[in-house]
Amino acid sequence: MSNPEQVLNKQSKINQDHWLDEVRVFAPATVANMICGFDILGFAVDKPGDEVYMQRVGNPGVRIRSIKGDDGRLPLDPDKNTVSACVMMLLAHLGLETEIGVEIELTKHMPIGSGLGSSSASTVAGLFAINTLLGNPLTKDELMPFCVEGERLACGHGHADNVAPALMGGITLIRGSQPLDIINLPVPDQLVAGIVFPQVDVPTRDARQLIKEKVSLKDAVVQWGNIAGLVSGLYRNDYELISRSMHDVLIEPTRAILIPEFYEMKRIAMDSGVLSFGISGSGPSVVAISKGFEAAQLAVDRIQEHLTANGIESLQFVSAVNAEGPKVLS
Amino acid sequence: MSNPEQVLNKQSKINQDHWLDEVRVFAPATVANMICGFDILGFAVDKPGDEVYMQRVGNPGVRIRSIKGDDGRLPLDPDKNTVSACVMMLLAHLGLETEIGVEIELTKHMPIGSGLGSSSASTVAGLFAINTLLGNPLTKDELMPFCVEGERLACGHGHADNVAPALMGGITLIRGSQPLDIINLPVPDQLVAGIVFPQVDVPTRDARQLIKEKVSLKDAVVQWGNIAGLVSGLYRNDYELISRSMHDVLIEPTRAILIPEFYEMKRIAMDSGVLSFGISGSGPSVVAISKGFEAAQLAVDRIQEHLTANGIESLQFVSAVNAEGPKVLS
Repeated sequence: MSNPEQVLNKQSKINQDHWLDEVRVFAPATVANMICGFDILGFAVDKPGDEVYMQRVGNPGVRIRSIKGDDGRLPLDPDKNTVSACVMMLLAHLGLETEIGVEIELTKHMPIGSGLGSSSASTVAGLFAINTLLGNPLTKDELMPFCVEGERLACGHGHADNVAPALMGGITLIRGSQPLDIINLPVPDQLVAGIVFPQVDVPTRDARQLIKEKVSLKDAVVQWGNIAGLVSGLYRNDYELISRSMHDVLIEPTRAILIPEFYEMKRIAMDSGVLSFGISGSGPSVVAISKGFEAAQLAVDRIQEHLTANGIESLQFVSAVNAEGPKVLS
Repeated sequence: MSNPEQVLNKQSKINQDHWLDEVRVFAPATVANMICGFDILGFAVDKPGDEVYMQRVGNPGVRIRSIKGDDGRLPLDPDKNTVSACVMMLLAHLGLETEIGVEIELTKHMPIGSGLGSSSASTVAGLFAINTLLGNPLTKDELMPFCVEGERLACGHGHADNVAPALMGGITLIRGSQPLDIINLPVPDQLVAGIVFPQVDVPTRDARQLIKEKVSLKDAVVQWGNIAGLVSGLYRNDYELISRSMHDVLIEPTRAILIPEFYEMKRIAMDSGVLSFGISGSGPSVVAISKGFEAAQLAVDRIQEHLTANGIESLQFVSAVNAEGPKVLS
């Protein structure tokens, strides 16, 4: 996988004849960790996701025209907004920052701070949109390091566990980070994610700080046995093995503390016949992973019912694993 | 995977008409950990290995007739010898301990205490031989828990990372230990192991004690990224990915201290074009893993030359991954 520095001489591939006037793209939400694979696994979902409309204008520079669905939480200042900052970064790398002008409309179809890779979806949508607008000078592999850098701008740390599945689609493995080595894993054809976002605030930073810096080797062995089992189950399309493997003995016990009703939600989900249940990313969203839609839908319906009875508002999303990543809508 | 307790009513499957008078079996040496997969991965090799000749006799009980190739280090007392103790354990479970008499000749074709699963090879050879002699009342899956129990008798701990590949053949993943969950992973067709055993003493117990009980989560993430990458590489037959993944950042740095010339051997191996190099099990044997025989052979020849120049005697074994596990020789 190339670093931003290695994406050289891309100018030569930039042909203004291929530039578009406008583009509308969708980039998917993502479930980082995939329950047992802390910081290395993640998958994209068909919904929710973010939408970016990008229009080329005569006046050079990058501007945010509007943001919808964010309850006024995201900045319109192009230097501070994730989407525009990423677009500017890529344009600077391509030597085009003074040549091109774009205006952006961002529509968030997903909650912010929910553990569903909200900033990654925006980052990927913005970068995918500008690359499409320029006639695709970069491949997805070449775009990836910019997505990681965008995540760093947005969150202060350049983890790829959300941007990798958001950009590549499907289930991704971050084999290594230095250098970045991302592997697309096979997606079992009936794998469905039922997501519930309890509307409580769990900042990623707090969730990260809770995690202990040292873990017992014994627990780590259990964890990597499960990770190896999950990867194997994905290649074999073996839902039983996937189910047996998707247990997190290291991170869940601490992060679950921040999520109200976590263990009751888990009990409800498992009773509904899903393969596994856990935290999406750093939470507070939780995810039930099932074979087929029925169990996932049942699980999230029952979980929402339970949360409502306990005075906690929530959103639900039930979706297949998204195979393609971002896509052009028009 | 069944526990010894779950292997019930096997008597009903025992048909004396199928009993053999004698059998000679081979069980393979094994490379536990497979460099990055501490306590969960392992593979069997075509050579070296152990040979057990077992003969049915009129006088009930289990006796050791002879042991060759052990330099007099192994006990002839049937209660203390691993092979006979395992055979007695299985016979007791089958309710046959007073009905049948067997005499055993054990030939060790591999060094003891070398990190090549010497006791596991004997355990598996003994149990596979008695099961064959009785007309195979147990499947390999049913035999596995007895192998783990045999390893506990031999070593004081019931790890399956050597007995699993020794019995099942190929590359095995111990997804979980409680209950035992063993997965056979695909074996890339050109995978070759070049093993060098430097003749220095590293008791498994010392090697285990060196390992820290706590590890940093950061290192653990690197390790399980590599484990997931290796498993993925095996399914894809992707030697590049296998090579990038086979790094051990957790165990090797401490265990390497006990192995003379470890880092120089590693440099020599990598310079010879192998995919990876590391410690076999708890050492002191080291293993170079390559695509095809040439690089592995070159690596072990050069390593032996280097050890000889430094006054260290050594043995070498170059072998493909053994796909079948134990086999009947006659």
